[in-house]
Amino acid sequence: MSKQETYTLKPIGWLRADFKQKFGTPRQGALAKNSRAVLELAPEWRGRGILSGLEGFSHVWIVSYLHLSQMTRQRGKVHPPRLKGAKVGVLGSRSPHRPNNIGLTLARIVSVNKDVLEVSEVDLVDGTPILDIKPYLAAADRPETFSSGWTDHVTHVTRLCEFTDQAELELARLTQEPSRLRALIEEMLTHDPRPPAYWNRQDANFAVWVAGLNVSFRFHDEKFTVVGIDKV
Amino acid sequence: MSKQETYTLKPIGWLRADFKQKFGTPRQGALAKNSRAVLELAPEWRGRGILSGLEGFSHVWIVSYLHLSQMTRQRGKVHPPRLKGAKVGVLGSRSPHRPNNIGLTLARIVSVNKDVLEVSEVDLVDGTPILDIKPYLAAADRPETFSSGWTDHVTHVTRLCEFTDQAELELARLTQEPSRLRALIEEMLTHDPRPPAYWNRQDANFAVWVAGLNVSFRFHDEKFTVVGIDKV
Repeated sequence: MSKQETYTLKPIGWLRADFKQKFGTPRQGALAKNSRAVLELAPEWRGRGILSGLEGFSHVWIVSYLHLSQMTRQRGKVHPPRLKGAKVGVLGSRSPHRPNNIGLTLARIVSVNKDVLEVSEVDLVDGTPILDIKPYLAAADRPETFSSGWTDHVTHVTRLCEFTDQAELELARLTQEPSRLRALIEEMLTHDPRPPAYWNRQDANFAVWVAGLNVSFRFHDEKFTVVGIDKV
Repeated sequence: MSKQETYTLKPIGWLRADFKQKFGTPRQGALAKNSRAVLELAPEWRGRGILSGLEGFSHVWIVSYLHLSQMTRQRGKVHPPRLKGAKVGVLGSRSPHRPNNIGLTLARIVSVNKDVLEVSEVDLVDGTPILDIKPYLAAADRPETFSSGWTDHVTHVTRLCEFTDQAELELARLTQEPSRLRALIEEMLTHDPRPPAYWNRQDANFAVWVAGLNVSFRFHDEKFTVVGIDKV
């Protein structure tokens, strides 16, 4: 076996997704049921029936290249936020900052039609290069019994999220999908997108770009309030 | 987004595994409960605690580069053996002959100790370059409901497998793990490793290299008989 080999991969496509920044993108797709994304196939893969047969599957694996996770020096250990400062080996985590920047997302199929694959429950940023798509097969991917190590012992905090009347009006005015986007914003905030450095601040203002909207929100009194929405 | 970008990946390690050839390697790890493999980390990843935190997880995802699946020209559609000649899009299948040669295996953790990860239920050939290891997280990887498309409608044929007395003796003599290897060979043959071109032959002889042994077997009367075992 050649220990010097490297492998050069070319994306089969890119994801068009609601999330435009790392900030606010949920940690796992399952926490973003209201997210939507479409796979934009690279030109050399169009018109070849590459997606045929996905009809009837409920989920796909999306293997991605996490292009926004560029590290100057890749660490062997990482600090998952839920461990509150403790470290684990990067291969003992699902951190995006890992060797080879490989992302693995279980997405729900919304529709498949010729070269267009629409999915939901994605934890990927708009423009993410996609290396592979595979159907979810219970026979291969679903163990009967399992244990989840350190993640079984961490608390998962969720936050209340409110919208001001002003924000509700702006949302209704600025988008054609107010229900879905309201639910999506709520999902994003319920699972607390604040970086650990902000956890001890009692009052902080944020803005996040999602689905063509600039969403201004505030963390105060242990909850999030969406205070304003503008068009990006 | 740059459409011209490619990504050059370097293996984090290689798998030392029982299966030495594509022929005989099971289609999915779940069909090879008696397989064993060890991740051999690349030198730059040793001594850095990269595997710490995997203790307590039952399974890991192994993202691999299927180095034996080199195609002169990658097809958009493939012929999964179980579809008996029909085609599906390569992304609608788990065929190893796919763009970017990305393999995804759910392996069971046997042991984790410093830089040594031992697994079972692997469907990968010895020497396979490994791009990533991730812990299996039910919260991210296990949908409550699911459907498996065309794979729900194909029959899965299993075959009887017998050993001649001679083969049993040779197995006991040539290996220190006769029980596990007997069970592994039986698993390999039960799920019928014959390429589709051989399905109509009433009588055929084969040999497969597995775990340091050359295993000679025969297909006859709709069953497999292991006729001889030599050291490789």
